[in-house]
Amino acid sequence: MFKTVTIVGVGLISGSFALALKQRGLVEKVIGVSRTERSAQKALELGLIDEIMSLEEGVKRADLIYVAIPVNASISVLQQILDLIQPHQIVTDAGSTKEQICASLEYHPNRARFVAAHPMWGTEYSGPEAAVKHAFTGKACVICDKEQSAQDALKTIEEVYTYIGMHLIYMSSVAHDIHAAYVSHISHITSFALANTVLEKEKEEDAIFELAAGGFESTVRLAKSNPDMWLPIFMQNRENVLDVLNEHISQLRKFKAALEKENHEYLQELMQQANRIGKILKSQN
Amino acid sequence: MFKTVTIVGVGLISGSFALALKQRGLVEKVIGVSRTERSAQKALELGLIDEIMSLEEGVKRADLIYVAIPVNASISVLQQILDLIQPHQIVTDAGSTKEQICASLEYHPNRARFVAAHPMWGTEYSGPEAAVKHAFTGKACVICDKEQSAQDALKTIEEVYTYIGMHLIYMSSVAHDIHAAYVSHISHITSFALANTVLEKEKEEDAIFELAAGGFESTVRLAKSNPDMWLPIFMQNRENVLDVLNEHISQLRKFKAALEKENHEYLQELMQQANRIGKILKSQN
Repeated sequence: MFKTVTIVGVGLISGSFALALKQRGLVEKVIGVSRTERSAQKALELGLIDEIMSLEEGVKRADLIYVAIPVNASISVLQQILDLIQPHQIVTDAGSTKEQICASLEYHPNRARFVAAHPMWGTEYSGPEAAVKHAFTGKACVICDKEQSAQDALKTIEEVYTYIGMHLIYMSSVAHDIHAAYVSHISHITSFALANTVLEKEKEEDAIFELAAGGFESTVRLAKSNPDMWLPIFMQNRENVLDVLNEHISQLRKFKAALEKENHEYLQELMQQANRIGKILKSQN
Repeated sequence: MFKTVTIVGVGLISGSFALALKQRGLVEKVIGVSRTERSAQKALELGLIDEIMSLEEGVKRADLIYVAIPVNASISVLQQILDLIQPHQIVTDAGSTKEQICASLEYHPNRARFVAAHPMWGTEYSGPEAAVKHAFTGKACVICDKEQSAQDALKTIEEVYTYIGMHLIYMSSVAHDIHAAYVSHISHITSFALANTVLEKEKEEDAIFELAAGGFESTVRLAKSNPDMWLPIFMQNRENVLDVLNEHISQLRKFKAALEKENHEYLQELMQQANRIGKILKSQN
Protein backbone atom coordinates (compact mmCIF):
# COMPACT_ATOMS: atom_id res chain seq x y z
CA MET A 1 0.00 0.00 0.00
CA PHE A 2 2.78 2.43 0.94
CA LYS A 3 6.40 2.51 -0.05
CA THR A 4 7.43 4.84 2.78
CA VAL A 5 5.50 6.12 5.76
CA THR A 6 7.01 8.78 8.00
CA ILE A 7 5.73 8.97 11.54
CA VAL A 8 6.22 12.30 13.26
CA GLY A 9 6.45 11.62 16.95
CA VAL A 10 7.42 8.07 17.88
CA GLY A 11 5.12 7.04 20.69
CA LEU A 12 2.17 4.89 21.67
CA ILE A 13 -0.10 5.79 18.74
CA SER A 14 2.36 6.22 15.89
CA GLY A 15 4.39 3.23 17.05
CA SER A 16 1.31 1.02 17.22
CA PHE A 17 0.23 2.34 13.79
CA ALA A 18 3.65 1.50 12.34
CA LEU A 19 3.44 -2.00 13.82
CA ALA A 20 -0.06 -2.48 12.40
CA LEU A 21 1.14 -1.50 8.91
CA LYS A 22 4.24 -3.69 9.09
CA GLN A 23 2.37 -6.67 10.43
CA ARG A 24 -0.01 -6.55 7.47
CA GLY A 25 2.68 -5.83 4.89
CA LEU A 26 1.19 -2.44 4.10
CA VAL A 27 4.49 -0.57 4.14
CA GLU A 28 8.03 -1.13 2.94
CA LYS A 29 9.77 1.36 5.16
CA VAL A 30 8.87 3.45 8.18
CA ILE A 31 10.86 6.60 8.92
CA GLY A 32 10.72 8.11 12.38
CA VAL A 33 10.95 11.81 13.19
CA SER A 34 11.33 12.77 16.83
CA ARG A 35 12.51 15.73 18.85
CA THR A 36 13.76 13.27 21.44
CA GLU A 37 16.84 11.31 20.40
CA ARG A 38 16.21 8.67 23.06
CA SER A 39 12.67 7.95 21.82
CA ALA A 40 13.85 7.71 18.23
CA GLN A 41 16.63 5.26 19.18
CA LYS A 42 14.21 3.21 21.24
CA ALA A 43 11.71 3.08 18.36
CA LEU A 44 14.51 1.90 16.07
CA GLU A 45 15.58 -0.78 18.55
CA LEU A 46 11.99 -1.97 18.91
CA GLY A 47 11.62 -2.19 15.14
CA LEU A 48 8.80 0.36 15.05
CA ILE A 49 10.82 2.42 12.59
CA ASP A 50 13.58 1.54 10.11
CA GLU A 51 15.38 4.87 10.00
CA ILE A 52 15.56 8.17 11.89
CA MET A 53 15.45 11.40 9.90
CA SER A 54 14.88 15.12 10.34
CA LEU A 55 11.37 16.42 9.68
CA GLU A 56 12.40 17.84 6.29
CA GLU A 57 14.09 14.61 5.13
CA GLY A 58 11.35 12.41 6.50
CA VAL A 59 8.61 14.39 4.82
CA LYS A 60 10.44 14.42 1.48
CA ARG A 61 10.71 10.61 1.36
CA ALA A 62 7.19 9.67 2.45
CA ASP A 63 3.99 8.69 0.66
CA LEU A 64 2.16 9.15 3.93
CA ILE A 65 3.12 11.42 6.82
CA TYR A 66 1.48 10.40 10.09
CA VAL A 67 1.56 13.01 12.86
CA ALA A 68 0.99 11.87 16.43
CA ILE A 69 2.39 14.41 18.86
CA PRO A 70 0.83 16.57 21.59
CA VAL A 71 -1.99 18.58 20.00
CA ASN A 72 -0.46 21.99 20.66
CA ALA A 73 2.67 20.95 18.75
CA SER A 74 0.53 19.45 15.97
CA ILE A 75 -0.69 22.85 14.85
CA SER A 76 2.72 24.25 13.90
CA VAL A 77 4.19 20.92 12.77
CA LEU A 78 1.26 20.19 10.42
CA GLN A 79 1.66 23.70 9.02
CA GLN A 80 5.35 23.06 8.33
CA ILE A 81 4.59 19.69 6.75
CA LEU A 82 1.91 21.09 4.45
CA ASP A 83 4.43 23.77 3.41
CA LEU A 84 6.91 21.04 2.43
CA ILE A 85 4.82 18.43 0.62
CA GLN A 86 4.33 17.65 -3.06
CA PRO A 87 0.84 17.12 -4.56
CA HIS A 88 0.98 13.30 -4.42
CA GLN A 89 1.74 13.12 -0.70
CA ILE A 90 -0.82 12.53 2.05
CA VAL A 91 -0.74 13.87 5.60
CA THR A 92 -2.88 12.73 8.50
CA ASP A 93 -2.86 13.19 12.26
CA ALA A 94 -4.14 11.23 15.24
CA GLY A 95 -4.85 14.09 17.64
CA SER A 96 -7.49 13.86 20.36
CA THR A 97 -8.78 17.34 19.52
CA LYS A 98 -9.73 18.46 16.05
CA GLU A 99 -11.35 21.89 16.00
CA GLN A 100 -8.28 24.10 16.45
CA ILE A 101 -6.09 21.93 14.26
CA CYS A 102 -8.58 22.03 11.38
CA ALA A 103 -9.22 25.75 11.84
CA SER A 104 -5.50 26.54 11.73
CA LEU A 105 -5.06 24.70 8.42
CA GLU A 106 -8.32 25.75 6.80
CA TYR A 107 -6.79 28.19 4.31
CA HIS A 108 -3.51 26.39 3.68
CA PRO A 109 -3.02 25.87 -0.09
CA ASN A 110 -2.27 22.18 0.57
CA ARG A 111 -5.18 21.62 2.95
CA ALA A 112 -6.70 19.02 0.62
CA ARG A 113 -3.70 16.72 1.15
CA PHE A 114 -4.50 16.55 4.88
CA VAL A 115 -7.00 14.15 6.41
CA ALA A 116 -7.98 15.02 9.99
CA ALA A 117 -8.49 11.79 11.90
CA HIS A 118 -8.83 10.52 15.43
CA PRO A 119 -8.40 6.79 15.85
CA MET A 120 -10.23 6.21 19.15
CA TRP A 121 -7.78 3.85 20.71
CA GLY A 122 -5.15 4.36 23.38
CA THR A 123 -3.87 3.22 26.72
CA GLU A 124 -2.74 5.14 29.78
CA TYR A 125 0.90 4.59 28.79
CA SER A 126 3.03 6.64 26.41
CA GLY A 127 6.31 6.52 24.50
CA PRO A 128 7.60 3.97 21.95
CA GLU A 129 7.82 1.23 24.60
CA ALA A 130 4.05 1.49 25.01
CA ALA A 131 3.36 0.64 21.35
CA VAL A 132 1.57 -2.68 20.87
CA LYS A 133 0.62 -5.01 18.06
CA HIS A 134 -3.09 -5.45 17.33
CA ALA A 135 -3.94 -1.93 18.49
CA PHE A 136 -6.94 -0.08 16.97
CA THR A 137 -8.84 -3.25 16.01
CA GLY A 138 -12.57 -3.08 16.71
CA LYS A 139 -12.51 0.59 17.65
CA ALA A 140 -13.88 3.65 15.87
CA CYS A 141 -11.85 6.08 13.83
CA VAL A 142 -13.37 9.52 13.48
CA ILE A 143 -12.63 11.41 10.27
CA CYS A 144 -13.36 15.12 10.47
CA ASP A 145 -14.28 17.74 7.87
CA LYS A 146 -13.83 15.13 5.13
CA GLU A 147 -15.13 17.50 2.44
CA GLN A 148 -11.94 19.49 2.88
CA SER A 149 -9.71 16.55 1.94
CA ALA A 150 -8.94 15.44 -1.62
CA GLN A 151 -10.82 12.29 -2.66
CA ASP A 152 -7.68 10.19 -3.14
CA ALA A 153 -6.19 11.25 0.20
CA LEU A 154 -9.44 10.54 2.04
CA LYS A 155 -9.83 7.17 0.32
CA THR A 156 -6.29 6.11 1.30
CA ILE A 157 -6.83 6.97 4.96
CA GLU A 158 -10.23 5.28 4.98
CA GLU A 159 -8.69 2.16 3.49
CA VAL A 160 -5.75 1.97 5.84
CA TYR A 161 -7.85 2.34 9.00
CA THR A 162 -10.46 -0.10 7.72
CA TYR A 163 -7.70 -2.54 6.86
CA ILE A 164 -6.30 -2.44 10.40
CA GLY A 165 -9.76 -3.20 11.78
CA MET A 166 -11.34 0.16 12.64
CA HIS A 167 -14.81 1.32 11.67
CA LEU A 168 -15.17 4.85 10.36
CA ILE A 169 -17.31 7.66 11.71
CA TYR A 170 -17.60 11.05 10.04
CA MET A 171 -18.30 14.35 11.69
CA SER A 172 -17.24 17.99 11.71
CA SER A 173 -14.18 18.89 13.75
CA VAL A 174 -16.44 21.00 15.97
CA ALA A 175 -18.82 18.10 16.69
CA HIS A 176 -15.86 15.79 17.29
CA ASP A 177 -14.54 17.97 20.08
CA ILE A 178 -17.91 18.12 21.82
CA HIS A 179 -18.26 14.33 21.71
CA ALA A 180 -14.65 13.75 22.72
CA ALA A 181 -15.19 15.91 25.80
CA TYR A 182 -17.98 13.55 26.89
CA VAL A 183 -16.61 10.16 26.03
CA SER A 184 -12.92 10.64 26.66
CA HIS A 185 -11.73 13.91 28.14
CA ILE A 186 -14.08 13.94 31.15
CA SER A 187 -13.13 10.34 32.01
CA HIS A 188 -9.54 11.48 32.27
CA ILE A 189 -10.39 14.42 34.52
CA THR A 190 -12.53 12.32 36.85
CA SER A 191 -9.78 9.73 37.02
CA PHE A 192 -7.08 12.31 37.79
CA ALA A 193 -9.34 13.91 40.42
CA LEU A 194 -10.21 10.54 41.97
CA ALA A 195 -6.52 9.70 42.31
CA ASN A 196 -5.94 13.05 44.00
CA THR A 197 -8.92 12.47 46.30
CA VAL A 198 -7.41 9.23 47.52
CA LEU A 199 -3.86 10.59 47.66
CA GLU A 200 -5.09 13.47 49.79
CA LYS A 201 -6.26 10.92 52.36
CA GLU A 202 -3.23 8.70 51.97
CA LYS A 203 -1.08 11.20 53.84
CA GLU A 204 -2.84 9.90 56.92
CA GLU A 205 -3.39 6.30 55.97
CA ASP A 206 -0.86 4.22 54.08
CA ALA A 207 -2.91 1.10 54.41
CA ILE A 208 -5.57 2.40 52.07
CA PHE A 209 -3.78 1.12 48.99
CA GLU A 210 -3.74 -2.42 50.20
CA LEU A 211 -7.48 -2.36 49.75
CA ALA A 212 -7.51 -1.15 46.17
CA ALA A 213 -9.81 -3.74 44.68
CA GLY A 214 -10.74 -4.00 41.02
CA GLY A 215 -13.27 -1.22 41.23
CA PHE A 216 -10.82 1.46 42.23
CA GLU A 217 -8.10 0.31 39.86
CA SER A 218 -10.29 0.55 36.79
CA THR A 219 -11.79 3.93 37.62
CA VAL A 220 -8.36 5.36 38.42
CA ARG A 221 -6.47 3.74 35.52
CA LEU A 222 -6.51 6.85 33.35
CA ALA A 223 -4.90 8.88 36.16
CA LYS A 224 -1.60 7.39 35.02
CA SER A 225 -1.90 9.28 31.71
CA ASN A 226 0.84 11.61 30.54
CA PRO A 227 0.25 15.29 31.51
CA ASP A 228 2.34 16.51 28.53
CA MET A 229 -0.19 14.95 26.23
CA TRP A 230 -3.32 15.85 28.19
CA LEU A 231 -2.61 19.47 29.12
CA PRO A 232 -2.85 20.65 25.48
CA ILE A 233 -5.94 18.50 24.89
CA PHE A 234 -7.74 20.08 27.84
CA MET A 235 -6.60 23.54 26.79
CA GLN A 236 -7.68 23.13 23.16
CA ASN A 237 -11.03 21.67 24.19
CA ARG A 238 -11.38 23.91 27.21
CA GLU A 239 -14.93 25.15 26.70
CA ASN A 240 -16.43 21.75 25.97
CA VAL A 241 -14.53 20.14 28.82
CA LEU A 242 -15.70 22.85 31.22
CA ASP A 243 -19.26 22.35 30.04
CA VAL A 244 -19.08 18.61 30.77
CA LEU A 245 -17.18 19.11 34.02
CA ASN A 246 -19.92 21.43 35.28
CA GLU A 247 -22.54 18.85 34.39
CA HIS A 248 -20.51 16.16 36.13
CA ILE A 249 -20.09 18.20 39.31
CA SER A 250 -23.83 18.82 39.31
CA GLN A 251 -24.49 15.08 38.92
CA LEU A 252 -22.18 14.38 41.87
CA ARG A 253 -24.04 17.01 43.89
CA LYS A 254 -27.27 15.08 43.28
CA PHE A 255 -25.68 12.03 44.90
CA LYS A 256 -24.44 14.23 47.70
CA ALA A 257 -27.88 15.74 48.30
CA ALA A 258 -29.56 12.33 48.23
CA LEU A 259 -27.05 11.01 50.77
CA GLU A 260 -27.28 14.05 53.02
CA LYS A 261 -31.06 13.88 53.11
CA GLU A 262 -31.03 10.07 53.31
CA ASN A 263 -33.35 10.15 50.33
CA HIS A 264 -33.36 6.45 49.43
CA GLU A 265 -35.79 6.79 46.54
CA TYR A 266 -33.77 9.49 44.83
CA LEU A 267 -30.48 7.64 45.30
CA GLN A 268 -32.04 4.47 43.87
CA GLU A 269 -33.39 6.48 40.94
CA LEU A 270 -29.98 8.04 40.22
CA MET A 271 -28.37 4.60 40.13
CA GLN A 272 -31.11 3.09 37.99
CA GLN A 273 -30.66 5.93 35.52
CA ALA A 274 -26.94 5.26 35.41
CA ASN A 275 -27.55 1.55 34.81
CA ARG A 276 -28.88 2.44 31.35
CA ILE A 277 -25.29 3.02 30.26
CA GLY A 278 -24.73 -0.74 30.39
CA LYS A 279 -27.29 -1.45 27.68
CA ILE A 280 -26.07 1.37 25.48
CA LEU A 281 -22.43 0.32 25.69
CA LYS A 282 -23.39 -3.30 25.10
CA SER A 283 -25.24 -2.41 21.92
CA GLN A 284 -22.01 -0.89 20.63
CA ASN A 285 -19.98 -4.05 21.04
CA MET B 1 -12.30 -28.92 55.03
CA PHE B 2 -16.10 -28.60 55.31
CA LYS B 3 -18.78 -31.22 55.16
CA THR B 4 -21.57 -28.73 54.47
CA VAL B 5 -21.47 -25.04 53.69
CA THR B 6 -24.70 -23.04 53.53
CA ILE B 7 -24.65 -19.88 51.47
CA VAL B 8 -27.29 -17.34 52.37
CA GLY B 9 -28.02 -15.35 49.26
CA VAL B 10 -27.05 -17.05 46.00
CA GLY B 11 -25.35 -14.42 43.89
CA LEU B 12 -22.05 -13.20 42.49
CA ILE B 13 -20.02 -13.47 45.71
CA SER B 14 -21.53 -16.51 47.41
CA GLY B 15 -21.78 -18.35 44.08
CA SER B 16 -18.15 -17.64 43.26
CA PHE B 17 -17.18 -18.67 46.80
CA ALA B 18 -19.07 -21.96 46.42
CA LEU B 19 -17.34 -22.60 43.10
CA ALA B 20 -13.95 -21.85 44.64
CA LEU B 21 -14.58 -24.35 47.46
CA LYS B 22 -15.90 -27.04 45.11
CA GLN B 23 -13.10 -26.60 42.64
CA ARG B 24 -10.54 -27.23 45.38
CA GLY B 25 -12.45 -30.05 47.00
CA LEU B 26 -12.91 -28.05 50.21
CA VAL B 27 -16.59 -28.91 50.62
CA GLU B 28 -18.80 -31.95 50.23
CA LYS B 29 -22.12 -30.19 49.90
CA VAL B 30 -23.29 -26.62 49.38
CA ILE B 31 -26.79 -25.63 50.48
CA GLY B 32 -28.37 -22.50 49.08
CA VAL B 33 -30.79 -20.23 50.93
CA SER B 34 -32.52 -17.55 48.92
CA ARG B 35 -35.60 -15.38 49.18
CA THR B 36 -35.86 -15.58 45.41
CA GLU B 37 -36.98 -18.96 44.09
CA ARG B 38 -35.68 -18.14 40.60
CA SER B 39 -32.15 -17.36 41.86
CA ALA B 40 -32.09 -20.53 43.94
CA GLN B 41 -33.17 -22.67 40.95
CA LYS B 42 -30.61 -20.99 38.74
CA ALA B 43 -27.85 -21.59 41.28
CA LEU B 44 -28.87 -25.26 41.43
CA GLU B 45 -28.85 -25.53 37.63
CA LEU B 46 -25.43 -23.90 37.46
CA GLY B 47 -24.07 -26.31 40.06
CA LEU B 48 -23.21 -23.54 42.52
CA ILE B 49 -25.35 -25.28 45.13
CA ASP B 50 -26.46 -28.88 45.61
CA GLU B 51 -29.70 -28.30 47.46
CA ILE B 52 -32.14 -25.48 48.30
CA MET B 53 -33.35 -25.12 51.88
CA SER B 54 -35.04 -22.66 54.19
CA LEU B 55 -32.79 -20.51 56.39
CA GLU B 56 -33.56 -22.63 59.46
CA GLU B 57 -32.86 -25.95 57.72
CA GLY B 58 -29.79 -24.62 55.96
CA VAL B 59 -28.28 -23.23 59.13
CA LYS B 60 -28.93 -26.46 61.03
CA ARG B 61 -27.02 -28.60 58.52
CA ALA B 62 -23.97 -26.39 57.97
CA ASP B 63 -20.45 -26.32 59.38
CA LEU B 64 -20.02 -22.89 57.83
CA ILE B 65 -22.75 -20.37 57.08
CA TYR B 66 -21.69 -17.80 54.49
CA VAL B 67 -23.88 -14.68 54.26
CA ALA B 68 -23.67 -12.55 51.12
CA ILE B 69 -26.79 -10.45 50.77
CA PRO B 70 -27.41 -6.68 50.68
CA VAL B 71 -25.88 -5.17 53.83
CA ASN B 72 -29.16 -3.88 55.25
CA ALA B 73 -30.61 -7.40 55.15
CA SER B 74 -27.38 -8.81 56.63
CA ILE B 75 -28.00 -7.18 59.97
CA SER B 76 -31.25 -9.00 60.73
CA VAL B 77 -30.32 -12.23 58.95
CA LEU B 78 -27.01 -12.54 60.84
CA GLN B 79 -28.91 -11.95 64.07
CA GLN B 80 -31.34 -14.77 63.22
CA ILE B 81 -28.48 -17.08 62.27
CA LEU B 82 -26.55 -16.42 65.47
CA ASP B 83 -29.78 -17.17 67.37
CA LEU B 84 -30.01 -20.56 65.64
CA ILE B 85 -26.47 -21.92 65.69
CA GLN B 86 -24.73 -24.48 67.86
CA PRO B 87 -21.30 -23.83 69.43
CA HIS B 88 -19.33 -25.74 66.74
CA GLN B 89 -20.75 -23.75 63.84
CA ILE B 90 -19.06 -20.81 62.13
CA VAL B 91 -20.74 -17.81 60.52
CA THR B 92 -19.11 -15.27 58.22
CA ASP B 93 -20.31 -12.55 55.89
CA ALA B 94 -18.95 -10.85 52.80
CA GLY B 95 -20.54 -7.42 53.17
CA SER B 96 -18.98 -4.25 51.77
CA THR B 97 -19.66 -2.37 55.00
CA LYS B 98 -18.68 -3.60 58.41
CA GLU B 99 -19.27 -1.02 61.14
CA GLN B 100 -23.05 -1.31 61.54
CA ILE B 101 -23.04 -5.08 61.09
CA CYS B 102 -20.41 -5.56 63.79
CA ALA B 103 -22.07 -3.04 66.10
CA SER B 104 -25.44 -4.77 65.80
CA LEU B 105 -23.95 -8.15 66.78
CA GLU B 106 -21.54 -6.92 69.44
CA TYR B 107 -23.50 -8.18 72.44
CA HIS B 108 -24.95 -11.31 70.88
CA PRO B 109 -24.16 -14.34 73.06
CA ASN B 110 -22.89 -16.18 69.97
CA ARG B 111 -20.84 -13.25 68.62
CA ALA B 112 -17.62 -15.27 68.90
CA ARG B 113 -18.85 -17.72 66.27
CA PHE B 114 -19.05 -14.88 63.71
CA VAL B 115 -16.10 -13.68 61.65
CA ALA B 116 -16.68 -10.32 59.95
CA ALA B 117 -14.94 -10.40 56.58
CA HIS B 118 -14.86 -8.48 53.34
CA PRO B 119 -13.25 -10.32 50.45
CA MET B 120 -12.25 -7.40 48.19
CA TRP B 121 -13.32 -8.89 44.92
CA GLY B 122 -16.34 -8.30 42.74
CA THR B 123 -17.56 -7.35 39.32
CA GLU B 124 -20.28 -4.97 38.18
CA TYR B 125 -22.62 -7.93 37.62
CA SER B 126 -24.87 -9.66 40.12
CA GLY B 127 -26.95 -12.81 40.59
CA PRO B 128 -25.95 -16.49 40.37
CA GLU B 129 -25.26 -16.22 36.62
CA ALA B 130 -22.49 -13.73 37.43
CA ALA B 131 -20.57 -16.21 39.60
CA VAL B 132 -17.20 -17.20 38.15
CA LYS B 133 -14.47 -19.70 38.80
CA HIS B 134 -11.10 -18.38 39.92
CA ALA B 135 -12.63 -15.38 41.68
CA PHE B 136 -10.88 -13.81 44.70
CA THR B 137 -7.39 -14.99 43.73
CA GLY B 138 -4.68 -12.38 44.27
CA LYS B 139 -6.99 -9.94 46.04
CA ALA B 140 -7.15 -8.84 49.68
CA CYS B 141 -9.61 -10.12 52.23
CA VAL B 142 -10.22 -7.79 55.15
CA ILE B 143 -11.05 -9.38 58.48
CA CYS B 144 -12.57 -6.99 61.01
CA ASP B 145 -12.62 -6.90 64.79
CA LYS B 146 -10.89 -10.27 64.87
CA GLU B 147 -10.49 -10.17 68.66
CA GLN B 148 -14.25 -10.66 68.93
CA SER B 149 -14.16 -13.97 67.07
CA ALA B 150 -13.29 -17.33 68.63
CA GLN B 151 -9.81 -18.57 67.73
CA ASP B 152 -11.04 -21.65 65.89
CA ALA B 153 -13.63 -19.73 63.88
CA LEU B 154 -11.09 -17.07 62.93
CA LYS B 155 -8.51 -19.69 61.95
CA THR B 156 -10.97 -21.51 59.72
CA ILE B 157 -11.94 -18.35 57.84
CA GLU B 158 -8.28 -17.30 57.54
CA GLU B 159 -7.42 -20.71 56.12
CA VAL B 160 -10.24 -20.87 53.62
CA TYR B 161 -9.55 -17.41 52.16
CA THR B 162 -5.81 -18.05 52.08
CA TYR B 163 -6.45 -21.36 50.36
CA ILE B 164 -8.49 -19.71 47.61
CA GLY B 165 -5.66 -17.28 46.97
CA MET B 166 -6.45 -14.16 48.99
CA HIS B 167 -4.10 -12.31 51.31
CA LEU B 168 -5.43 -11.21 54.66
CA ILE B 169 -5.60 -7.71 56.12
CA TYR B 170 -6.83 -6.97 59.62
CA MET B 171 -8.52 -3.83 60.84
CA SER B 172 -11.36 -2.60 62.98
CA SER B 173 -14.80 -2.47 61.40
CA VAL B 174 -14.71 1.32 61.81
CA ALA B 175 -11.38 1.65 59.95
CA HIS B 176 -12.62 -0.74 57.26
CA ASP B 177 -15.56 1.47 56.41
CA ILE B 178 -13.37 4.58 56.13
CA HIS B 179 -10.98 2.80 53.76
CA ALA B 180 -13.78 1.18 51.78
CA ALA B 181 -15.31 4.62 51.19
CA TYR B 182 -12.06 5.70 49.54
CA VAL B 183 -11.07 2.67 47.55
CA SER B 184 -14.41 1.30 46.53
CA HIS B 185 -17.55 3.26 47.37
CA ILE B 186 -16.41 6.57 45.85
CA SER B 187 -15.42 4.82 42.62
CA HIS B 188 -18.96 3.57 42.31
CA ILE B 189 -20.45 7.02 42.90
CA THR B 190 -18.17 8.69 40.38
CA SER B 191 -18.96 5.99 37.87
CA PHE B 192 -22.73 6.31 38.37
CA ALA B 193 -22.44 10.10 38.13
CA LEU B 194 -20.28 9.92 35.01
CA ALA B 195 -22.82 7.69 33.32
CA ASN B 196 -25.56 10.19 34.21
CA THR B 197 -23.42 13.06 32.93
CA VAL B 198 -23.12 11.43 29.53
CA LEU B 199 -26.74 10.22 29.47
CA GLU B 200 -27.88 13.77 30.19
CA LYS B 201 -26.17 14.84 26.98
CA GLU B 202 -27.23 11.78 25.02
CA LYS B 203 -30.79 13.07 24.86
CA GLU B 204 -29.45 15.44 22.26
CA GLU B 205 -26.78 13.32 20.69
CA ASP B 206 -27.17 9.62 20.01
CA ALA B 207 -23.90 9.43 18.16
CA ILE B 208 -21.92 9.98 21.33
CA PHE B 209 -21.86 6.31 22.21
CA GLU B 210 -20.24 5.32 18.98
CA LEU B 211 -17.19 7.13 20.26
CA ALA B 212 -16.96 5.37 23.58
CA ALA B 213 -13.34 4.35 23.47
CA GLY B 214 -11.58 2.29 26.10
CA GLY B 215 -11.18 5.22 28.44
CA PHE B 216 -14.85 5.87 28.91
CA GLU B 217 -15.81 2.22 29.17
CA SER B 218 -13.42 1.51 32.02
CA THR B 219 -14.31 4.59 34.06
CA VAL B 220 -18.02 3.95 33.62
CA ARG B 221 -17.93 0.17 34.12
CA LEU B 222 -19.09 0.30 37.73
CA ALA B 223 -22.18 2.30 36.71
CA LYS B 224 -23.71 -1.02 35.71
CA SER B 225 -23.68 -2.10 39.38
CA ASN B 226 -26.87 -3.22 41.10
CA PRO B 227 -28.68 -0.40 43.00
CA ASP B 228 -30.28 -2.92 45.39
CA MET B 229 -26.83 -3.84 46.59
CA TRP B 230 -25.33 -0.34 46.58
CA LEU B 231 -28.11 1.68 48.16
CA PRO B 232 -27.69 -0.01 51.57
CA ILE B 233 -23.89 0.22 51.30
CA PHE B 234 -24.04 3.97 50.72
CA MET B 235 -26.62 4.36 53.49
CA GLN B 236 -24.63 2.34 56.03
CA ASN B 237 -21.42 4.14 55.14
CA ARG B 238 -23.11 7.47 54.61
CA GLU B 239 -20.83 9.71 56.66
CA ASN B 240 -17.58 8.34 55.27
CA VAL B 241 -18.91 8.40 51.73
CA LEU B 242 -20.06 12.00 52.13
CA ASP B 243 -16.66 12.93 53.49
CA VAL B 244 -14.92 11.44 50.45
CA LEU B 245 -17.49 12.79 48.04
CA ASN B 246 -16.91 16.30 49.37
CA GLU B 247 -13.17 15.86 48.91
CA HIS B 248 -13.73 14.53 45.39
CA ILE B 249 -15.96 17.45 44.40
CA SER B 250 -13.32 19.83 45.74
CA GLN B 251 -10.63 18.05 43.69
CA LEU B 252 -12.82 18.38 40.57
CA ARG B 253 -13.27 22.08 41.36
CA LYS B 254 -9.49 22.48 41.29
CA PHE B 255 -9.45 21.15 37.73
CA LYS B 256 -12.35 23.43 36.91
CA ALA B 257 -10.59 26.49 38.34
CA ALA B 258 -7.35 25.65 36.53
CA LEU B 259 -9.25 25.30 33.24
CA GLU B 260 -11.28 28.45 33.73
CA LYS B 261 -8.21 30.50 34.50
CA GLU B 262 -6.17 28.71 31.81
CA ASN B 263 -3.65 28.03 34.53
CA HIS B 264 -1.37 25.58 32.69
CA GLU B 265 1.08 25.17 35.56
CA TYR B 266 -1.61 24.28 38.07
CA LEU B 267 -3.31 21.85 35.69
CA GLN B 268 0.03 20.17 34.99
CA GLU B 269 0.70 19.97 38.70
CA LEU B 270 -2.70 18.40 39.43
CA MET B 271 -2.07 15.72 36.79
CA GLN B 272 1.46 15.04 37.97
CA GLN B 273 0.16 14.58 41.50
CA ALA B 274 -2.43 12.12 40.21
CA ASN B 275 0.25 10.19 38.31
CA ARG B 276 1.68 9.06 41.66
CA ILE B 277 -1.25 6.65 41.94
CA GLY B 278 0.35 4.54 39.21
CA LYS B 279 3.44 3.79 41.27
CA ILE B 280 1.44 3.09 44.39
CA LEU B 281 -0.92 0.68 42.66
CA LYS B 282 1.98 -0.99 40.90
CA SER B 283 3.76 -1.63 44.18
CA GLN B 284 0.65 -3.51 45.32
CA ASN B 285 0.69 -5.96 42.41
